[in-house]
Amino acid sequence: MKIIDGSNVIYSFKPEMNSVEWIKPGEIFKVVTHDCFHGQIYNESQVMNEIDYSRLNPATGPIGVEGAEPGDILKVKIISILPAAKGVTITLPKEGVLGHKATKSLTMILNIENGNCNFKGIKIPIKPMIGVIGVATNKQDGEYDTATPWKHGGNMDTTDICEGSTLYLPVNHHGAQLALGDCHALMGDGEICFTGCEIAAEVILQVEVIKNKNITWPLIETKDYTAVIASGETIDDAIEAATEQAVDHLIKGLDISWEEAYILASLILDIKISQVVDPKKTVRGAIPKNVLPTEQLLCSI
Amino acid sequence: MKIIDGSNVIYSFKPEMNSVEWIKPGEIFKVVTHDCFHGQIYNESQVMNEIDYSRLNPATGPIGVEGAEPGDILKVKIISILPAAKGVTITLPKEGVLGHKATKSLTMILNIENGNCNFKGIKIPIKPMIGVIGVATNKQDGEYDTATPWKHGGNMDTTDICEGSTLYLPVNHHGAQLALGDCHALMGDGEICFTGCEIAAEVILQVEVIKNKNITWPLIETKDYTAVIASGETIDDAIEAATEQAVDHLIKGLDISWEEAYILASLILDIKISQVVDPKKTVRGAIPKNVLPTEQLLCSI
Repeated sequence: MKIIDGSNVIYSFKPEMNSVEWIKPGEIFKVVTHDCFHGQIYNESQVMNEIDYSRLNPATGPIGVEGAEPGDILKVKIISILPAAKGVTITLPKEGVLGHKATKSLTMILNIENGNCNFKGIKIPIKPMIGVIGVATNKQDGEYDTATPWKHGGNMDTTDICEGSTLYLPVNHHGAQLALGDCHALMGDGEICFTGCEIAAEVILQVEVIKNKNITWPLIETKDYTAVIASGETIDDAIEAATEQAVDHLIKGLDISWEEAYILASLILDIKISQVVDPKKTVRGAIPKNVLPTEQLLCSI
Repeated sequence: MKIIDGSNVIYSFKPEMNSVEWIKPGEIFKVVTHDCFHGQIYNESQVMNEIDYSRLNPATGPIGVEGAEPGDILKVKIISILPAAKGVTITLPKEGVLGHKATKSLTMILNIENGNCNFKGIKIPIKPMIGVIGVATNKQDGEYDTATPWKHGGNMDTTDICEGSTLYLPVNHHGAQLALGDCHALMGDGEICFTGCEIAAEVILQVEVIKNKNITWPLIETKDYTAVIASGETIDDAIEAATEQAVDHLIKGLDISWEEAYILASLILDIKISQVVDPKKTVRGAIPKNVLPTEQLLCSI
C-alpha cells in the first residue's frame, strides 16, 4: 500500500496545485496526517498563544488522482482512521460559542486507550473523523486557507467524515489535488469551544473518479443518508445553501416540481450542525437513502 | 384511561392558566389533539390564506397535574402518538428557508398507511412527534402564543419529542397546566418550508412531578441522550442558550470546572437543529448518557 507521509503539507487550497504523489482510481492508500497544531502542543503547561500560528491546520498532500479533470466528481471512501495515542484539546479566552464567558486558557492532553478517550477518568468511545479535507479550488473562488471550509471542502469539521463514509468533492483541477489533516478522535456537532480532541492520524482511503458530474457543494454519504455539506458567513447562510442544493437533488432525483421538492425537504431533510466556530460556519442537509438512494441521486445530476 | 378530548384548546401559554381536567402523578391518560390548522384544510384546492388565522396552533388543555408547584419539574413520558389517517403539508410564497424562491402555493394531503406517509407514491416511514407542548409561563416572561417556543416549551417543533421520549418542563404555576397539539407524522430537523406533515392525533402520556428542581430550558430525554431545548431570536442565540445550560449540567453532574466542562462540551455535545422557521428558532444540545446519565444530571440540579 502506498503511503503518503506527512513530510509535505499545505496551508491553503488554491486553483493551481501540484501533487507530491499520484494515485490510481480504485487504489487503496494511506495518508499520515498531523494534528491541527502541527504537533507543537505536547504538554498541558503549554498555552496556544505561545506557538507558531503560521503552522496551524497542515493538510498532507496534495495527492493527484489519475483521470480526474475539472467537471468530474472525486469519490473518496474513508476506509479507516487510526488516531495517535494522545490528543490535545484547548479552551482560550474569547473563543467559541461561550467566548464571552471564557476567561482562562486550559490545555488538556487526553489519552486514547482501547478505543476510548480518557477525560479525567470518564471513558468516552472515540469517533475518529477528518477535520480538513479538500481539493484544488475553482478559479473564481481563489485561495482558501486550510482553516476555512468552502465548496472545495477544507475545514468542514463534519463528524460524518469518518470511517465508513464516502465523501464526494467537485474536481476543479487536473488530478483533483486532494489534501487532508486535522483529524479529531472525538468532536461534538458544533465544536463549540473551537477544538475537538485534536490528533495526528493514519488515514486509509480509496478514491474513484465519477466523470462529467457537477456538484456545487461536497456530499457525504453515510449508512443512512447523503448529506450536502455547505458553508457560509452565518449559520443561516449555510442552511440556505445546503437546502438549495438538497432541493435540487430531490427535483432531479425524484422528477418532482420545485414546490413538491421544497415540501418534501421540510418532511425529510435533516439540517445538521457541523461547526459554528470556524471563519465560515458549516451545516449539512441530510437526505435519507430510503427517500432518494445515493446512486439515484448521483445518476440524476 | 382518562381522555382529555379536544373540545377545550388554548392559543397562548400564560402565567395564569386554569385546568379543564386534573391528572394524578403516575396516571396514564390520553390527549386528543388537533392539527395546526385546526382541521380547516382538508382538500388540496384550499390555500392557507383563505382560513381563519386566529384558530392556528390550538393546544388541547390546560391539564392540571396534582402536586406540581412552581419550582418543580414536570416529567412527561410520551407513551404513544397515534396520528390520524391524513396529514396536510403546505408551501406558501415567501415562507421558510428558501422563501425568496417560493413563489407559488401548494397544498398536499398525504395519506398515512401502515406506518408510512405516502408522498406521490414514495412510502416514507412516519416518525410522529408533538410540535406544541408546554406549561404556564413564568410571570417575567408573560404570555406566549402557541406558535412560539420559549422556556415554558410551546412550539418547539423538535423531532425528539416523540414516542418513547421523556420531556422535562419547568413548573411555573400550581398544577403546571400542560397543553399540547400540532403533531407531525413526519418532519425533518429544521422544518425548512415551515410545515411538517400536520396531523390530528391521540397522544398517550404519563406525568410525574420532580419536587424542588429548577431548569431554565426544557430537557428531552431519548434513548441515547438528554438534550437541552433552547430557543432564541436567532439560531446563534438558541445555540448559545442551549450550550450555556448544557455546560452547567456538565459542571454540576460531573463535578468539573467551567473550563473543563466547556472543553468536554466541545467533545461530546451535539448541537441539533429543531426548527428555523418559527417566530423564535429552536435547537437542542444533546448530552450523551454514556458521559452523564439523565438521573445523575437531574440529581445534580
